[in-house]
This record gives sequence, C-alpha cells and structure tokens, in this order.
Amino acid sequence: MPTITLLTDFGTSDSYVAEVKGVLLSGCPGATLVDVSHAVPQGQIPTASYLLGRTWRHFPKGTVHLAVVDPGVGTTRRAVAVGRDGHFFVAPDNGLLTSVIGTGAEVWTLAEPEGASPTFHGRDLFAPAAARLAMGATLADVGALVLEPPVLLASPIPQYEGKKLHGEILHVDRYGNLVTTFTPQVVPAYAVLESEDMEIGPIRRTFGDVAKGELLAYWGSSGLLEIAVRDGSANRRLGIGVGARITARLG
Amino acid sequence: MPTITLLTDFGTSDSYVAEVKGVLLSGCPGATLVDVSHAVPQGQIPTASYLLGRTWRHFPKGTVHLAVVDPGVGTTRRAVAVGRDGHFFVAPDNGLLTSVIGTGAEVWTLAEPEGASPTFHGRDLFAPAAARLAMGATLADVGALVLEPPVLLASPIPQYEGKKLHGEILHVDRYGNLVTTFTPQVVPAYAVLESEDMEIGPIRRTFGDVAKGELLAYWGSSGLLEIAVRDGSANRRLGIGVGARITARLG
Amino acid sequence: MPTITLLTDFGTSDSYVAEVKGVLLSGCPGATLVDVSHAVPQGQIPTASYLLGRTWRHFPKGTVHLAVVDPGVGTTRRAVAVGRDGHFFVAPDNGLLTSVIGTGAEVWTLAEPEGASPTFHGRDLFAPAAARLAMGATLADVGALVLEPPVLLASPIPQYEGKKLHGEILHVDRYGNLVTTFTPQVVPAYAVLESEDMEIGPIRRTFGDVAKGELLAYWGSSGLLEIAVRDGSANRRLGIGVGARITARLG
Repeated sequence: MPTITLLTDFGTSDSYVAEVKGVLLSGCPGATLVDVSHAVPQGQIPTASYLLGRTWRHFPKGTVHLAVVDPGVGTTRRAVAVGRDGHFFVAPDNGLLTSVIGTGAEVWTLAEPEGASPTFHGRDLFAPAAARLAMGATLADVGALVLEPPVLLASPIPQYEGKKLHGEILHVDRYGNLVTTFTPQVVPAYAVLESEDMEIGPIRRTFGDVAKGELLAYWGSSGLLEIAVRDGSANRRLGIGVGARITARLG
Repeated sequence: MPTITLLTDFGTSDSYVAEVKGVLLSGCPGATLVDVSHAVPQGQIPTASYLLGRTWRHFPKGTVHLAVVDPGVGTTRRAVAVGRDGHFFVAPDNGLLTSVIGTGAEVWTLAEPEGASPTFHGRDLFAPAAARLAMGATLADVGALVLEPPVLLASPIPQYEGKKLHGEILHVDRYGNLVTTFTPQVVPAYAVLESEDMEIGPIRRTFGDVAKGELLAYWGSSGLLEIAVRDGSANRRLGIGVGARITARLG
Repeated sequence: MPTITLLTDFGTSDSYVAEVKGVLLSGCPGATLVDVSHAVPQGQIPTASYLLGRTWRHFPKGTVHLAVVDPGVGTTRRAVAVGRDGHFFVAPDNGLLTSVIGTGAEVWTLAEPEGASPTFHGRDLFAPAAARLAMGATLADVGALVLEPPVLLASPIPQYEGKKLHGEILHVDRYGNLVTTFTPQVVPAYAVLESEDMEIGPIRRTFGDVAKGELLAYWGSSGLLEIAVRDGSANRRLGIGVGARITARLG
C-alpha cells in the first residue's frame, strides 16, 4: 500500500490537485495520497523546500514525495527524480529539493511524455513518474541518470559581528511563529535572542516557560530556533516576516 | 478499492465535508476519497461544472463522482445519478452535470431517505447513494429511471462580428490565468487574441515562449484557450474576470 | 482498514498536518485518514468541540478521532484518550471533548514520549497514541486510567424571561448560517424566533418554505436550531456572530 505525498502551489480552489490525484490513482490503484500543502505562495521555492524538508522523514520508507512548485514550467528547466534513505522525490530541478539532497545526489531526468500539456507538468509528467515509482519502478526505469548536479538554493549562512550572530526568518507559520535559520550547531544554549533593538530573551524549552502574551525563543519542532508569543503572534508583535534579520547575542 | 471524488461549495472550515465522508466510509468501507474542491463559490453551478468536467476522466473507470453545489436544497429540484463511460455521477439536477452529459443522458432520480435532514442532502441523500454505487450497486438499484431530460446550463456560443469572434472568460484560476470559452474547433491557430482594446497576441505553446511579465494566449491543460502573464496574473493585468469578453481576431 | 479523523487549528499552509499524517501512517500502515477541519480559529476550543460533536457518529465504529486544538501545549494540561460507543478520541484535556463525553467518562492520560517536541504534541504525543489505537491497542495499552474527571466546557443554558427564552449563537458556518444553542428539548414547535428587535419568524422545515432572500429558522442538520437567509447570509443580514443573543418567543 504505497504512499504518495503532494506539495504544490496549486491552491485548492481549482481542480488541479484532483487531476493529479486521478492520474496517480489510475497509475497506482489503492495508493494512499497525503497532502503536504497546496498553499505554498505562488512560485515560492524556498517555502516549498522548507516544508518538504520537515515532512518527508515522518513518512514510511518507500513513500514517493511529489513536489511541484514550478514557475519554470514551459522553459528548459529539468524534471527530476531522486532517492534518499528509501524515499523517492519527483520535482522540477529548481532548488525545491535543497532540503532533501546535496550536490552529490544522483539525479535522474524525466522525459516529457508525448501529448503532455506544456503548462501542466504536474499532471502529465511528474504524476505519471510518481505513480510508477509507487508501483515499484526504479529510478532507472523512470528517468535517465545525468552528471550535472541538481539546482540547489543558497543556504543562508549566519553572519558573525563581534559577539553577535545574525540569521534570518525562514518561514512564518499559521500561528505567527517565526522560524529562523539558526540551528543548534551554531547557536549555543546560553544565547540571548533579539530582533533589531528588541530583546526576545534566552532560549526557553516551551510556551509554558513564559507568561501569556510574552515573547519567547525555543528550539522548534523542525529543529530550528523559533520565536513566538505565547497565545499570540510573534509575526504581529515584532512586525517582521520572511527575510528579516534575527540576532543571537553570545556574550 | 473504489474511488469516490467530492466536489462541493461546503468550504473546509465546517465539518460538512467530514460528515459526508463518514457516511461514505460507513457505506463503503475502505473507499479512497479524493477532494476535487470544496471552495466553489457558494451556489456557483457553472464553476462546479467546469471543475468536474476537467477532472473526472483522469480517474479510473468505476469512480463515483459526488458533486453537491446545491442552492436548491429544500426545494423540488431533483436529485440524480447518471453514468458515463464507466464513471458514475451523483448530484442535484441543476446543471452541474452539463460538462459531463448531454440532453440524451439517462437520468435516475434518487428518493429522499426517511429521516434525511431537509437542509443537508449532501450527507443524507447523495452520500448514501454514492456509497452504494461505489459498493457495486447499479443505477437502477439506487434510483428510478425518468424520461425528463436533465437540467443543462446554456453553452456559451462564440459570436462572430465580421472577422472577429467573441467569447468570454469561464474561470479564473489561482494564478490569475483566465480560462476562456474558446475551443480549438472554433479558433484557428493563426488567430490573434485581444481583450477590449488590448492586444494579447498570437496563440503560443507555453509560458517559455514569451518574456517574464508578458501576456500570452495558449491552449490550456483543459483544452480551452487560456490567457496568462508569465510569472504574473492576467486577472490583475487585464482587470477582467468571469464573464468578461475575449475576442479572437481571424484576419 | 481503520479510519482516523483529524481536527486541528493547524491550518493547511504549513506542513504540520502532513507531519502528523506521516506519523499515523508509519504507526498504522494503510489507515484511512480523513480531515474534519484544520481551520478551527486558533485555540478556539468551543468551535472544535462543536465540529467534533457533529461529526464523529457518522464514522464507522472503531474510528479514532484525533483532535488537537491545544493552546496549552507546553503547560501542565493533560493529554487524554477516551472511548465512547466504539469510537476512540485522543485530545488535550481542555474541554475539546465536551461534545462527546460527560463528567463520568473514564479518562486515560497519555505520557509524553521521550524526545517529543515540547511544542508539537500533535505529532509526537497524540499521533503515536492514535496510531496505536487504530492498530488495535486498548485504552489501557496507551494510557493510565485516572480518577480526575475531564475538563468540560460550561454548557450554555437557555435563560427564561417571562415568555421569552434566550439562547445564543454557537457557530457561524461558511454560508453565514447561524447555529444556535437551542435544542428541540427546550424550544417548542410553535416558538417564534427573534434577534434583538428583529423578528425572524416561526420554525420552518427547510429553505424552500420561504422566498429567496428571506430569513428563516429551522432545525439544522446537527439537531440544533439554525437561522439562515435563503440564498443569502444570515450572518451578514443580522450583523451578529458567535455569542450573540437569540430569543425564542413562546407566546
């Protein structure tokens, strides 16, 4: 009973997601289909990569992850399939898989099937390949191995300035929590967080460690440092969003 | 492992869709349920018909399509089931099936079950019938054959004015792409598109055929002519939406 | 083929729901997953309780209902599992289960697994327990029976004032229909409804009983009295929402 996850910027007001699912179920009857999100802002590859990166490992090995945020459809960008740790990924080669693979990954290019709509590769190119992988096909069955490395997004690298370390906001979630680029590898437990001139405070364990309405920093469920307001919105409180600078004071 | 698709204007903030799915899974354990969309604008039957028309053929034969955009619930409108090409459709008889069937279709009326909520036929009338069809019941098992033809929406017929052909916008998708009523049967490859006095240009193959930010016309993934802005929104650029006039210049 | 329903305030723009589903499918391969809603307003436990209360009985016995609207995550609130009529419920002990159980319910507390994210119990605490129940584990297998009664929301009790009975708006649905706290046990068939000084009228059977654009009261599909405008929005017409007073005139 294979599982296929779907991550797109198609929205849910149109029938695009359902058309893809029809192709998946036609090619792989009985597959379990799971939506990651279809509300990625249009063409926002970094958001899609972040969401995919937090999600895939929670699924069983053998899962096929179909990710189509594809502003380059109808251009010469490649369509690719890759494998990692028993999972399969099918996506445009535009950086979307940055959170999953590195420069050394083996990349298999997918050919455009005869008769495919040149504006809807999600349905006519990526979905048939995902269905075949879910049915047990190998990467070599569905694509051609190529030597060119995949397109990868530049990683945001924290910048030191004296005893300060500058990172940035990677994602704002539904609650207004701010996910930063800070990892435990670069930010020590004793750091104190600030946003511009506003002090956020030390790194807490969880919401209950501050009073309602107070700002806090904590290691979030994706492993990255997050900033929240307990029972509120850090996005609104601080008035900052994706790309804004966050600083860890180290002494 | 039967598949049932769902298309409604119920939204996803309420529990209505889940109540329908509970009835479907109670009546047809193990069914695969796929959402087409639940964001059809309230009571917008033409939008629902357009979405259903593009979607159903991508599913395996035997799929049951449950479509409930039903502003007439609680009136005398009929509830119907029909078949086409191995697919089944369950819907109110209000034009929603226009994209699927013609005037000659055999229509089976569904009776209102004892105790059905008179305001929620999606759950209490349509879903039980869909579940029975998914379990292998025939149309004759679930309904009564009637001679009255189904209610069908008037088809928008392109209008000629000299060497100009006037059609209209049928749907605006999430990207701001404008789906028109033009089919390849009436619009030749050499046509030049315009919106009011603004020239859109010749019919292209895909987005890569114009520069970023430029308008283009192309045969969309539903088979109809679409108008888009590459990496932008034709809806915002042209300031037009559903019902607006689009013209194909034929010479 | 067990079914697990999901009700949260996670939204669908983030990957939180998919992460939970990955854990569910890893723990219970082949489970049928059904979304009730993920659009509960943030932390609105009464809304979640209302939606869960209308939904669960429509699913087959054996279904596990995972409900996580959990503003208290990271505090000392309990995580619980309960059973009722062959269904299982996994939720924070914050009143969310008020529509399902009473004060006498047997409540099983769930321990926080080693390594669980202290801010995402939906994924790391509730989902593993739900998956085990779906796999056939008993409540005693997943939790510890406790004597303290569950947290329950105060029930809104209609207030009499002479021949008037005052209730309130419990929920506003996508159509702008107003669901009230009135049950058939307290409001007789001959009652006449009003909102402040505006008369809504007698209790009708369904929408077809009034002209388009007119207000009506009727017994809704959840069993509660609802107020709607046929082909319109009572929410906009009356300008009232959740918590507003509705009056039944009994003579």
